[in-house]
Amino acid sequence: MKISISHSSQHVGKEVVIQGWVYNTRSSGKIVFLQLRDGSGFIQAIVASQAVAPEVFEAAQRATIESSVEITGTVSKHPKKEEYELQVSGVKLLGTSEEYPIGKKEHGPEFLFDNRDLYLRSQTPWAVLRIRDRVFFSIEQFFHEEGFVRFDTPIIQPTSCEDTTQLFTVDYYDEPNYLSQSGQLYSEAGIMGFGKVYDFGPVFRAEKSKTRHHLSELWMMDAEMAFHDQTMNMDVQERMVKRIVGDVLKYCAQELAILGRDTTILQRLVNEPFVHLKHHEAKRILKEEGLVSGVESYDDTYWQDDMSTEEEIALGNKYQLPVFIEDYPAAIKSFYMKKYTDEHGVLRARCADLIAPEEGREIIGGSQREESYDALKKEIVDRNYPLEEYEWYLNTRKYGTVTHSGFGIGLERTVRWLTGVHHIRETIAFPRTLNRSRP
Amino acid sequence: MKISISHSSQHVGKEVVIQGWVYNTRSSGKIVFLQLRDGSGFIQAIVASQAVAPEVFEAAQRATIESSVEITGTVSKHPKKEEYELQVSGVKLLGTSEEYPIGKKEHGPEFLFDNRDLYLRSQTPWAVLRIRDRVFFSIEQFFHEEGFVRFDTPIIQPTSCEDTTQLFTVDYYDEPNYLSQSGQLYSEAGIMGFGKVYDFGPVFRAEKSKTRHHLSELWMMDAEMAFHDQTMNMDVQERMVKRIVGDVLKYCAQELAILGRDTTILQRLVNEPFVHLKHHEAKRILKEEGLVSGVESYDDTYWQDDMSTEEEIALGNKYQLPVFIEDYPAAIKSFYMKKYTDEHGVLRARCADLIAPEEGREIIGGSQREESYDALKKEIVDRNYPLEEYEWYLNTRKYGTVTHSGFGIGLERTVRWLTGVHHIRETIAFPRTLNRSRP
Repeated sequence: MKISISHSSQHVGKEVVIQGWVYNTRSSGKIVFLQLRDGSGFIQAIVASQAVAPEVFEAAQRATIESSVEITGTVSKHPKKEEYELQVSGVKLLGTSEEYPIGKKEHGPEFLFDNRDLYLRSQTPWAVLRIRDRVFFSIEQFFHEEGFVRFDTPIIQPTSCEDTTQLFTVDYYDEPNYLSQSGQLYSEAGIMGFGKVYDFGPVFRAEKSKTRHHLSELWMMDAEMAFHDQTMNMDVQERMVKRIVGDVLKYCAQELAILGRDTTILQRLVNEPFVHLKHHEAKRILKEEGLVSGVESYDDTYWQDDMSTEEEIALGNKYQLPVFIEDYPAAIKSFYMKKYTDEHGVLRARCADLIAPEEGREIIGGSQREESYDALKKEIVDRNYPLEEYEWYLNTRKYGTVTHSGFGIGLERTVRWLTGVHHIRETIAFPRTLNRSRP
Repeated sequence: MKISISHSSQHVGKEVVIQGWVYNTRSSGKIVFLQLRDGSGFIQAIVASQAVAPEVFEAAQRATIESSVEITGTVSKHPKKEEYELQVSGVKLLGTSEEYPIGKKEHGPEFLFDNRDLYLRSQTPWAVLRIRDRVFFSIEQFFHEEGFVRFDTPIIQPTSCEDTTQLFTVDYYDEPNYLSQSGQLYSEAGIMGFGKVYDFGPVFRAEKSKTRHHLSELWMMDAEMAFHDQTMNMDVQERMVKRIVGDVLKYCAQELAILGRDTTILQRLVNEPFVHLKHHEAKRILKEEGLVSGVESYDDTYWQDDMSTEEEIALGNKYQLPVFIEDYPAAIKSFYMKKYTDEHGVLRARCADLIAPEEGREIIGGSQREESYDALKKEIVDRNYPLEEYEWYLNTRKYGTVTHSGFGIGLERTVRWLTGVHHIRETIAFPRTLNRSRP
């Protein structure tokens, strides 16, 4: 009976057929040990010369690394561990593999990503991209259970949402158009028909920075909700993150173990309320506790500034839980956010970024949206955005405007945090960065 | 208590609060009838002047089409139908709406799609895009239950899979790159690590044809499976289509009713085996039964040709079930398909297109892939494709090649079939076509 390796535990004592690849092999002369993988999992196949026909043993000896094979054998369980083995009776060599380029020696990341098609067969990418799959599916399940409708916003867009320096231009039947940086404005039109929508697809950022945090092509989930204020918005985010983390812990134990991920903090956050800090409060704590080095002066710039990478990491380390940083100064935030003036006369946005602990940094950005037609139009004009391009967007405030909010979560940032890998390029099958669009 | 309209049946006899929009209104002098929608469903709110304070009745009278409102009332059930009403005690006008442009009179499609942001509030788009949501989620669930891993292939690609005339060019940091037409070749690399993968995202076709079947930006689901031959491939497809249709019938009864969709054939196909015809056999039946008019001659061209739109529709009409058309002449199919020579000496591909009945036309294309390194390399060279761009792809056959197959299903084509709408632009939130990339 043909089985997947992941189902081995259901077939102990039975003869099965496994089709897969040899990812490692060693021989003690009379026994060949074939380490097999089939995409669903890993198992060791033991070929004893005394137990099989000479041609079977010879086939096992010829099975080089990354050969494809069909192995017949009886499943046995390790006496102490939750591990299974195959006592082999048959070996069929399907596809040969000569001089497989990825070996046991250390390779640099450039080599591995030049050969990403092959590197995908290794255990780290296997574990990371299966966790990515789980995060994706948990998000899909969460929003369907919550009554959201999937709303695919366009990738090809005639205008930019905000900053035009980070746009990729596409030749659209001889007209310049742009690749989407965000579908948010479209989703805001979507909620006027569907109430609660989410949009989960690729977005593009022509960021000329070469850091371990940046991809040029990435996947974002944007949710938008009518009749939700910023408090309700953060509540949805917290429940969603808890659902994702809970599912990864539940379904990806093997993957987390392969990655050597300490799950103490992940387990804790599923059951504890997230931290909420106002932007001003967060800045005060960072200053008073001296959590960040190298701040030149605590002048106006300090209090009005965005959170730096170092500040985000420091706050994550301090609380060891996800932290909502709320109500940034409006001047450094997007035009569509709802604003208010705080008790010190500072204009603030009703927004929050969610900082993941363990150096996960910002994984979510969200806000309540300005629902007043006049205020939003003024903001567009004040920022010198082309008003005619925003007319359709302003319709959302012209005809039956409503209180509404939304947020976006970066899939790759979330996967990097959950897997603990160093560089974000590990979290997507074929990364696109400043220097790479191949293979 | 604040509820969604879709939950009305659980609150009969109770006072609830509903937030939404007025999509229609009429008055008999002493009673105002407000037709409400909130994205989850539709309900009629009855405001009787004798039952409410004068200012509440006045607010109801001022609630124009597409005003946003908060209505308090008691849910009652229609004595005979599965319909619910609200006996109103309170009306709060939230956002006004003056001269809403989409009225009860007929609008042409150009007007509706110029105002797609508003047209999305109408009942047809509501029903169609909720069915799209259901199809999407059923596909996600199906593949996860079957042990596939989601594998997001890159949108920005340095080369084309095949035909370069239909590519959109993107300026990628001053280098020309292309928007993905298909992620299939990447998915073939993916199965070498993950066994079974699927890829569900936007793809782009710069088709200069203006028909009701074509979009420039569309969503495709591509599945790829190691150790699957073409028979196993078609079996997965049939089970997936049955799952999708079964779920749409189960979860989208209201949407199908709004669209006036006759579901007789959909209900039938969930339980009946799909039809299988070889390409040659299909052509013979079309000829012998005279199913297609205007065929000039039944010469070699006829027997070697692709299926025309008319032929696809004729076969769907004849069988009233999905039809697999198998084993097209290799010459008109893609380079990566596995080939064989039939009993008449014709080189054929081990492939199948799945034709949906009721003018649904081709919704799936799939094939077994050529697994021989030499045969595949020869095909690339013979077709004058740039060999150096396919080196990484050939690695899938160089290191442990395996029998494998895959298929792609077009989301919009499937939704068009299931909803019965005339033009494919209805099946996506913001369609992109030869003439349109706005709003």
